[in-house]
Amino acid sequence: MRIGVLGGDGFVGWPTALHLSARGHEVVIVDSLVRRQIDGELDVQSLTPITSPKERRDAWAELSGRHIHLERIDLAKDYGELKAWLAAFRPDALIHLAEQRAAPYSMKSARQKRYTVDNNVNATHNLLAALVELGLDAHLVHLGTMGVYGYSTIGAPIPEGYQPIKIDLPNGDVAAQDILYPANPGSIYHMTKCLDQILFAYYAKNDGLRITDLHQGIVWGTNTAETGRDERLINRFDYDGDYGTVLNRLLIQGAIGHPLTVHGTGGQTRAFIHLQDSVRCIELALQNPPERGERVKIFNQMTETHRVRDLAAMVSRLTGAPIEYVTNPRKEAAENDLVVKNDQFLALGLQPTTLSAGLLTEIVEVARRYGHRVDARHVPCVSAWTREIAERLAAERRPHLVKAAS
Amino acid sequence: MRIGVLGGDGFVGWPTALHLSARGHEVVIVDSLVRRQIDGELDVQSLTPITSPKERRDAWAELSGRHIHLERIDLAKDYGELKAWLAAFRPDALIHLAEQRAAPYSMKSARQKRYTVDNNVNATHNLLAALVELGLDAHLVHLGTMGVYGYSTIGAPIPEGYQPIKIDLPNGDVAAQDILYPANPGSIYHMTKCLDQILFAYYAKNDGLRITDLHQGIVWGTNTAETGRDERLINRFDYDGDYGTVLNRLLIQGAIGHPLTVHGTGGQTRAFIHLQDSVRCIELALQNPPERGERVKIFNQMTETHRVRDLAAMVSRLTGAPIEYVTNPRKEAAENDLVVKNDQFLALGLQPTTLSAGLLTEIVEVARRYGHRVDARHVPCVSAWTREIAERLAAERRPHLVKAAS
Repeated sequence: MRIGVLGGDGFVGWPTALHLSARGHEVVIVDSLVRRQIDGELDVQSLTPITSPKERRDAWAELSGRHIHLERIDLAKDYGELKAWLAAFRPDALIHLAEQRAAPYSMKSARQKRYTVDNNVNATHNLLAALVELGLDAHLVHLGTMGVYGYSTIGAPIPEGYQPIKIDLPNGDVAAQDILYPANPGSIYHMTKCLDQILFAYYAKNDGLRITDLHQGIVWGTNTAETGRDERLINRFDYDGDYGTVLNRLLIQGAIGHPLTVHGTGGQTRAFIHLQDSVRCIELALQNPPERGERVKIFNQMTETHRVRDLAAMVSRLTGAPIEYVTNPRKEAAENDLVVKNDQFLALGLQPTTLSAGLLTEIVEVARRYGHRVDARHVPCVSAWTREIAERLAAERRPHLVKAAS
Repeated sequence: MRIGVLGGDGFVGWPTALHLSARGHEVVIVDSLVRRQIDGELDVQSLTPITSPKERRDAWAELSGRHIHLERIDLAKDYGELKAWLAAFRPDALIHLAEQRAAPYSMKSARQKRYTVDNNVNATHNLLAALVELGLDAHLVHLGTMGVYGYSTIGAPIPEGYQPIKIDLPNGDVAAQDILYPANPGSIYHMTKCLDQILFAYYAKNDGLRITDLHQGIVWGTNTAETGRDERLINRFDYDGDYGTVLNRLLIQGAIGHPLTVHGTGGQTRAFIHLQDSVRCIELALQNPPERGERVKIFNQMTETHRVRDLAAMVSRLTGAPIEYVTNPRKEAAENDLVVKNDQFLALGLQPTTLSAGLLTEIVEVARRYGHRVDARHVPCVSAWTREIAERLAAERRPHLVKAAS
């Protein structure tokens, strides 16, 4: 297949591009490289020393004999270039990861909120509009998030996108419907993925576009079979309070001897998936597109759920680092249950890579190897969800958390 | 109250600004004037000879002794100016009508689709982000559309925003919830109002903003008590296939002796409201804001429903113009029922101005007076919802519909 990986320089995009290239697909990475710019804006860097886009592309060609083409296009801004590239490449499929993907970053201030909404909505919509304008029948596979569901208190397992409901009719009958799960996003970032869902539903209905939306859990791990082949192929690994995902962040804290910071009671239950499974799921989704005219196909891309405090306890046992409970910068329930259906990927043959001490130790090793690159000031999550929480956080600054590892 | 009318130069905005000014409120019109530019882009003009923003503002001051201030700000683009204005004016309420509001325009081509999404989402989001950044507790009243509901086939009346549903639980219990009505937009324009709904729900939940969303039916009529006071205050009246709303368009066709073009079977049932009621409803919504922390307050701003072919028959009797059934440029059900709840505005005292031959005749009079300004080439709706419909329309061009009145 001819496949465009949009956002293919990123944390999930790069391993996805290599995985698909290794399987013989013709892969083009389309990326604005804005994620590397944001490192500069936040004054942090990936824990792992990622090489430049061209250097890693060339290293992959040297090692695998397969060439990945790079296109620097900003989907949200460069509609003309996007269209020209699509018209020339005529992809069979597009993997759309070209969105700002950190909830804490999206909550930092009005500037990041506005950037996240503007970038994510326009990137997705430009893509949809271009496919229709060009009459291209490429299968669009989008990386969504489990966060579109919010943390429901309904008490039923989270379905894969569509919820069967019943409505009482005035004549006493009951109407049954299957609706897109009611959106209840927990941050501006998560909200943009809810907006995406409506864009997708509309374009699938009106224009018959073939679209798959993957509602992914929190990704952990750093390398895949392909990125682990050579240090020049190493994948991005974020440890900072804005871009570091919870388990990866705890592992880094443990590795460098920083207290493991747990928000609130740590009673939040989250869905997780290993990076290797993430790229496998994307491949499975590619192999199983919806029909033209079918509604958007939605998968829950996660393999297990865990409570944050249980993860912290596991990392603490592994590394000896103490746990410190801190004020939650997010506005959310202190404790939540989470039961998620993921039958579709299991039925397609996914063999989940679940959390184990062995795999966690591997990540701690990586973290220790590159520990000198960590700037401990950037480990705490300081992006507050509301003005009130920001004030509370400011009042209780804990300098020892910052200094612990510096 | 200090009230900002965003989009206050437009079809509903201008009468709203005058209505509120007449009632003693301190009104500022904020507008990018893009709607006047679009007239140029489409090579059409308002049937009525609207004066310049300053000329009508000055005429209002002369007649009423009340001054309306004008601010030329593009909400979607000029965040800094928007913020500076909000910080200085510190409004008690904002009426948000600053969105591209024509479904056919939003479907013309990728350019208009992209403009509509970019403009509407960013205008709304910039406003929300600015209120939070400034810590302003202004009541935000947004003009939504009945189109967010789509044309449901559930069989239950359309509620005011929130639908009670039931979900079967694994343990045999049934969970009851009240959810935002499942979105099913019929065009890019309508879709943006569904996106707005998610933005509003999020900011009400996370930041406690006080927001009212008015899901308006199709507006008919041209003047209100205030705009009718002097020809310099005359309101915009669109008759073209892109911006003309269905009843107003049929009335113009009848007035100038053009066949009344009905899409498909004319079996579409639509919700309507007279312009005078529209401004009254906005005033009622202003007087009844939600509490801080309350969910978004949603009203259905409509007073009656009619089938398009019945309206055409009424206009035909009134004007003698024949009816011509033409291919529907929209992708929609040929026939639909529509039962809508509007109890809230009725309970607040709204006295609906319903369709009557008398009021229709008044509009026909206006149309005849300015009939020389009509360019008959622009009367047919040519903006097609899909590539297939566009091809069908092109194959069956009916030149007599264009020539009839030229």
